[in-house]
Amino acid sequence: MTTLLGKGGGPTAVIAQSLVGAILRARLLGTTARIYGALHGVQGIVNQDFVDLTDVPEEDLELVAKNPGAQLRSTRDKPDQVYCANILRVLQAHRISSFLYIGGNDTSETLRILSTQAAAIGYDLTCVHVPKTIDNDLVCNDHTPGYPSSARFVGHAFMGINRDVMSLPGVYIGVVMGRHAGWLTAASALAKEVDDDGPHLIYMPERDFDMQTFLRDVKAVYDRLGRCIVAVSEGVHDASGKPILHSFKDLDTDPHGNVRLSGTGALADFLSEQVKHSLGIQRVIGDTLGYLQRSFPDASDVDRREARMVGERAALYASLRRTGSVTINRIGDYKVDYGLVDLADVAGKTRVVPDAFISDSGTDVNEAFLRYLRPLVGSDFRRAYSLRAPAVPKILLE
Amino acid sequence: MTTLLGKGGGPTAVIAQSLVGAILRARLLGTTARIYGALHGVQGIVNQDFVDLTDVPEEDLELVAKNPGAQLRSTRDKPDQVYCANILRVLQAHRISSFLYIGGNDTSETLRILSTQAAAIGYDLTCVHVPKTIDNDLVCNDHTPGYPSSARFVGHAFMGINRDVMSLPGVYIGVVMGRHAGWLTAASALAKEVDDDGPHLIYMPERDFDMQTFLRDVKAVYDRLGRCIVAVSEGVHDASGKPILHSFKDLDTDPHGNVRLSGTGALADFLSEQVKHSLGIQRVIGDTLGYLQRSFPDASDVDRREARMVGERAALYASLRRTGSVTINRIGDYKVDYGLVDLADVAGKTRVVPDAFISDSGTDVNEAFLRYLRPLVGSDFRRAYSLRAPAVPKILLE
Repeated sequence: MTTLLGKGGGPTAVIAQSLVGAILRARLLGTTARIYGALHGVQGIVNQDFVDLTDVPEEDLELVAKNPGAQLRSTRDKPDQVYCANILRVLQAHRISSFLYIGGNDTSETLRILSTQAAAIGYDLTCVHVPKTIDNDLVCNDHTPGYPSSARFVGHAFMGINRDVMSLPGVYIGVVMGRHAGWLTAASALAKEVDDDGPHLIYMPERDFDMQTFLRDVKAVYDRLGRCIVAVSEGVHDASGKPILHSFKDLDTDPHGNVRLSGTGALADFLSEQVKHSLGIQRVIGDTLGYLQRSFPDASDVDRREARMVGERAALYASLRRTGSVTINRIGDYKVDYGLVDLADVAGKTRVVPDAFISDSGTDVNEAFLRYLRPLVGSDFRRAYSLRAPAVPKILLE
Repeated sequence: MTTLLGKGGGPTAVIAQSLVGAILRARLLGTTARIYGALHGVQGIVNQDFVDLTDVPEEDLELVAKNPGAQLRSTRDKPDQVYCANILRVLQAHRISSFLYIGGNDTSETLRILSTQAAAIGYDLTCVHVPKTIDNDLVCNDHTPGYPSSARFVGHAFMGINRDVMSLPGVYIGVVMGRHAGWLTAASALAKEVDDDGPHLIYMPERDFDMQTFLRDVKAVYDRLGRCIVAVSEGVHDASGKPILHSFKDLDTDPHGNVRLSGTGALADFLSEQVKHSLGIQRVIGDTLGYLQRSFPDASDVDRREARMVGERAALYASLRRTGSVTINRIGDYKVDYGLVDLADVAGKTRVVPDAFISDSGTDVNEAFLRYLRPLVGSDFRRAYSLRAPAVPKILLE
């Protein structure tokens, strides 16, 4: 009886917590003889690239847990039926009884195929999906481990940017990760202290993006405040669904055919140029928050705890021989409970930001969203505080 | 007798500490009747945009001190003789006896002109320069408030990026702020735990940048490790001194004629394209760390304390009617002392990274630099820690 751990998709700041949670709980439960880790997820399985985690000292694991990123490394491979058959062949050879796979909805889909194939050949394999994604787009979950820490980073980033642009006025356009869902971009509103604080405009993939409307929106804010801070999801698209990034830049794809939106400053630069030339504003900054959003080592304490717990839960379900996807459900303000749902309920599905969290203008979030997000980003999330002091009457009259 | 405070140039994470330090110390010393703040630096002076800081509650100031950015806002104006004459006219009208100006070497130059002009007309004005710049390029100083917090951000950023690129291999190019000096880019090496950790190549403006050498360097690392992480200063230039950014992009200038290097992802994207096309590597990420480097609300505790102290010192020197620039001098490991030098000693001068801190290859920093930097970035700077576990022998033989 060996338990195998692995990780698929993009890293987050708290994956290592889930990994360590699963290892330590599996040891405590004592129902598994050995605990293996696959390097680079399913790719590592077919290559038999395993490490033995059974006896790694707890002190080491606790240091590992504090680090961002995937300690077992990761993969973008999305196995098909043939690939999954190869995985099963290796798992059987290594006498793996449980496979705990940390990842998003693609990862869940891989496990769904695997468990179906295993059942068909009478191989008693327990498959547990451990949720993680900064995109926060898993269905059946209140939120997803990794998202709170990334939201914390984005919230802190715009808190600083707000003050920066107030100091030296202009237009600031910050591009935030998020292909289909605007959860992370929405987090840019988290640190607003007073109404005039930025971001003043938030563009999410949940609404179609129209260039003329965008320019009109920016002009209106700039005319009123002398500055304008914009948060834009990398995945914003026109009414036909085509990403704005691809209206002026050739499609860039990864080795598995996924269209790439991150890793370039092109969208921010394109929008900046539009504002400069159409509105004649001189100081326009285009920033792309980039890969720091998912790897910056400043995790939310709530996220750390919950990521640990879903890992522990996965080990528990594995010991009970229960296949499924671990979920996080909010049961109070703020308290969560954990559960298990069928892999098929989560696999391949995407949860976008609901209308109930988006303002009527379509370019802001509302108080209901902020109430949803605030408890997640950590007990030490910074509060903005502005200097208030009376004006001194002018003496010299021109 | 009124003391005036103001802020010039780009914001940092700890300016508010210097501001609050100066206000509270001036109150304690009791040699000034009122304390004013100029909004937007010298621009606010000529417009008589002053706020009265004399009675702002200490509790409020302590909350303000924790915030990044310039609470009195800032300006890029570099006053000439005529502009300075206008400033003096306003200062005299408002009976300002001391002007404490927080900023970099341009700010020091403004104060130098002002104090010379004031002396010429017999106006007893004390001018104290309070050092701040994320560029760390002030002469006569061991380091400059603002730099440690930005270095902390850059160090943490590359710590996360290292793990991210290890998870999903490729080439990562991160562009870091720094026009003439590579201090901030050098900080990218701060969180390296083992030799193979990134950044593997660091390009600073202290060395000429050659595209063919760059591509050869990247290829060598990529061939060896299967990944390559690069940190590049925005100000890297060819042998003629022309910024690489301007070899393919039109000059962008701010309203005062300074050539702008920040606010665009163009350099990272350009270098990425070169690597993609010349080396045929598919996964190449171009990130530009952008304005978060100077505004992210996660200051170093050492930086916070020292920024507070230079503000307090400035108030002390003002009360003693001593004009000059406050300095930070290292006197131990780690301990600093504060001093005052002539404005002309600092004004308009730039301190670059010395050869003694750069490796022979020219694309890395050495242990001496890391010993210099480590004490500055905060007692809670994160340590990377990698999982180590034995490999499992392969069972299936193809």
